[in-house]
Amino acid sequence: MATQLYPEYPPDLNEAEQTYLLSNLKDWSIAHGLAVRPTASYVSAETDPSGALATTAPVTLFPSLFPRVCFEQAKSVAQAYNELYSAIASDEEWLKQTVEELVDIDDFIAELWKVHLAVKQEGYVQPLNLGLFRSDYMVHTDPTNPQSGPCVKQVEFNTIASSFGGLSSHVFGLHKHLLAIDAYPETVASINDKSLPESKSVPGLALGMAKAHEAYGPSTGGLPTCVIFLVQDPERNVFDQRHVEYELNKTHGVRTFRLPFGRVLEDTKVDSDRKLIYTPPHAPSKQFEVTLVYFRAGYSPDEYHSQRDWDGRLQIERSAAIKCPSVLTQLAGTKKAQQVLATPHSPHLKRFLPDDAQAAEVLKTFAPIYPMDESEAGKEARKLALDPETAMRYVLKPQREGGGNNVYRRAIPGFLKDTPETHWPAHILMEMIEPPAQDNVIFRNGELQKGGVICELGIYGACLWRDEGGQSGREVLENFEAGYLLRTKGSGSEEGGVAAGFGSVDSACLVDV
Amino acid sequence: MATQLYPEYPPDLNEAEQTYLLSNLKDWSIAHGLAVRPTASYVSAETDPSGALATTAPVTLFPSLFPRVCFEQAKSVAQAYNELYSAIASDEEWLKQTVEELVDIDDFIAELWKVHLAVKQEGYVQPLNLGLFRSDYMVHTDPTNPQSGPCVKQVEFNTIASSFGGLSSHVFGLHKHLLAIDAYPETVASINDKSLPESKSVPGLALGMAKAHEAYGPSTGGLPTCVIFLVQDPERNVFDQRHVEYELNKTHGVRTFRLPFGRVLEDTKVDSDRKLIYTPPHAPSKQFEVTLVYFRAGYSPDEYHSQRDWDGRLQIERSAAIKCPSVLTQLAGTKKAQQVLATPHSPHLKRFLPDDAQAAEVLKTFAPIYPMDESEAGKEARKLALDPETAMRYVLKPQREGGGNNVYRRAIPGFLKDTPETHWPAHILMEMIEPPAQDNVIFRNGELQKGGVICELGIYGACLWRDEGGQSGREVLENFEAGYLLRTKGSGSEEGGVAAGFGSVDSACLVDV
Repeated sequence: MATQLYPEYPPDLNEAEQTYLLSNLKDWSIAHGLAVRPTASYVSAETDPSGALATTAPVTLFPSLFPRVCFEQAKSVAQAYNELYSAIASDEEWLKQTVEELVDIDDFIAELWKVHLAVKQEGYVQPLNLGLFRSDYMVHTDPTNPQSGPCVKQVEFNTIASSFGGLSSHVFGLHKHLLAIDAYPETVASINDKSLPESKSVPGLALGMAKAHEAYGPSTGGLPTCVIFLVQDPERNVFDQRHVEYELNKTHGVRTFRLPFGRVLEDTKVDSDRKLIYTPPHAPSKQFEVTLVYFRAGYSPDEYHSQRDWDGRLQIERSAAIKCPSVLTQLAGTKKAQQVLATPHSPHLKRFLPDDAQAAEVLKTFAPIYPMDESEAGKEARKLALDPETAMRYVLKPQREGGGNNVYRRAIPGFLKDTPETHWPAHILMEMIEPPAQDNVIFRNGELQKGGVICELGIYGACLWRDEGGQSGREVLENFEAGYLLRTKGSGSEEGGVAAGFGSVDSACLVDV
Repeated sequence: MATQLYPEYPPDLNEAEQTYLLSNLKDWSIAHGLAVRPTASYVSAETDPSGALATTAPVTLFPSLFPRVCFEQAKSVAQAYNELYSAIASDEEWLKQTVEELVDIDDFIAELWKVHLAVKQEGYVQPLNLGLFRSDYMVHTDPTNPQSGPCVKQVEFNTIASSFGGLSSHVFGLHKHLLAIDAYPETVASINDKSLPESKSVPGLALGMAKAHEAYGPSTGGLPTCVIFLVQDPERNVFDQRHVEYELNKTHGVRTFRLPFGRVLEDTKVDSDRKLIYTPPHAPSKQFEVTLVYFRAGYSPDEYHSQRDWDGRLQIERSAAIKCPSVLTQLAGTKKAQQVLATPHSPHLKRFLPDDAQAAEVLKTFAPIYPMDESEAGKEARKLALDPETAMRYVLKPQREGGGNNVYRRAIPGFLKDTPETHWPAHILMEMIEPPAQDNVIFRNGELQKGGVICELGIYGACLWRDEGGQSGREVLENFEAGYLLRTKGSGSEEGGVAAGFGSVDSACLVDV
């Protein structure tokens, strides 16, 4: 189904060329922290009980091709998306409607909503919100109308734990270095200084956090302040997070701590003014006032093992610390919200983006999404999904966050037949984005895989806003684009190619198509 | 034998403090390339056939204590040492004398001298020389005269492949970071911003190479130019070298290639003007004119497997590329030369350092060294070495480069009895430097070891000089100190402590003693 949009790419390397490229890639990546902790299948716990080993993060050997016009299009709507999602997160009434349709089928959403209601009853004490968003796109070429040219269509919008911003700046640096040392054969004219856009995700995300930290202000009680990175433990992708943390330390002088999600109740408390107070386990006599809690955990139901974890989430939410994100901001990022906005002829976008021109640009990036409920649009969707012929153009996605469990094309009708109809509304039906075909080589866990790949472009956005309740109570203080990520995985479109879902970080090589 | 000079150090950490320090150390080091490839005993070749894994370089948890006055003393003589060794390397007549005493007992020295003679016969075509030296010291406190205060005494002077400059800048960065995040308990007042001197070894060494590259000038034949890093293959300490290389690329715009020592004849040739021409194996149609060959290989006899390796060395030596170092500069760094200079009442220092004040400062850093030959000083040395009582204050070292095989104190008389007397002159006898006792904790191969340690301070020096032959033909073009290294190893002075020779990179915490 994939269309041919790009020139022949990447070049075939002979053995000496590949050795040169790969040895430089392996050294540069480790020298610059473009790294992950190895998987247990790569390095066993017995080999490395202290967890001191690291390896090159999964990366592409070549920057993948991406149409310049599409890259610019995605960047141009970053601020509009910040505006849109900060408005949604501030519109409790609207969120309530979308959430209510999910509470019976998605316990996780229901529990998150309960956290919000509990804090609402007590009264929120922190009107400031930070969003470090990532809007993910694929290039779409309409096979029925190739003259229309490529555009980007949104895959999803992440409002919590948008990852890989720390590594993205470095994979750009890697590809730029490989270009500078002539590791790319000269015949590949596509790769040159003008075709490789810099990803400023590390400084961009750190700046967003620094702005929130600054807006919080000093501790009224005279305590030192800090930013908390709320993390999973263990975390293989730790360097991704560390690069942003070190930038925050170094460039902005902000003190940071990593707090495992399961230790919130042990290591923090909420004082009588609802300030969030952090006590480091290694320095129990010290206290820090937390200005910002940056979530790199707590986004998946799997992480909530017991009521204690929900109590921890509530403790953060009811505190005066700025949350990145708040529960409402997390809920604004459900696929259900995306679907409601992207349902054809939906009136909702206008509610949040009164500027018609801005709304029109955002609308262009939507792929049609249908609910699977009893509404008119839902009925239409069920018909499309159950018919094997039309189902071929769609993907069925669960509403829940966290990725995975998507059902594609021909598998949809059978899946629905095996699923009780009451559970259908837990999914959305989305028109497949048809990305152009291209190949690349991925280096992961010390192994090379070459073949067809699919690229997702993520544009980071940073948004700091004040929400005092009601339409007039919302004020956007900071709104900027914060770098990009290209994530590339095997398309699984051929035998012996890159395994489907075999993901890697990448950078863009812009082409005029 | 070690004296007590320092306060109680380092602090004992409880489990939570150690966890905090170590997790931050492990992450920061990999994020910043303070890394090595793991040993085969840590990670087997089957686990990682492509060599993509890395681990934290062996480091100390705390910056080791070092007397400020000693640190300043060592830095203050860096330029004088550059002057001294560039003068020795330019004095073929003097070198000939010292080498001639070794040729019968040290094949390696003999072969190096042959390389020089061959090029001399043909005529040298490159008068420029680059030295990237490292003078290594230990703190010495005279146990018989403690009032005299500590001073530094030279352990050895390295004129080839002075390593760890790439990592040293980063271990300073690590300790500085650990201080900034309060990983060192506040009671350790010694560790503060003023007590941690920055090591500028990465920019310093790269600047030295850039100056040589620049002095070589553009290719007369219009070829692109490059600097060659002549390396061992495989090389576990590759990131140490890469950091200097990347600095040279990025800050000075100099093109670089890594050339394994065994591939010199395959990948280079000397043209009719004696230019050294490099052809990268991955781009056989290209040619680069080599401005500088930086040796990180070829310093040990083990690396010369056959005549072919000597032919490669000769090929570089007779070329117009600047050598870092030339054969004569390498020979200037023999322990024999060090011994001749440091033999009590030696007239040699004055020959090379006519400035009396400068010579006096250098002289202060010498520990007495005796030859083991038939000279008057040699006879005195043999008496000292054979008497078990006096031998206790000495170390017997082989003249050859590369370290190892030292014989200490009580073991000396027995060793000499088992060694044919004709081989005794292959060694020098050196008065033991008596460094003050201190403890530290070393993290290496994922394991912690705590105990008594010995620190060696290395001061890097960069020197570019022109040698047109004769005293008047020498002109020093660049002469600067280029950062420092602290290398710390177990003293082996107690049971269960840090294993002797268990080395690590470290940074200095200066104390006023």
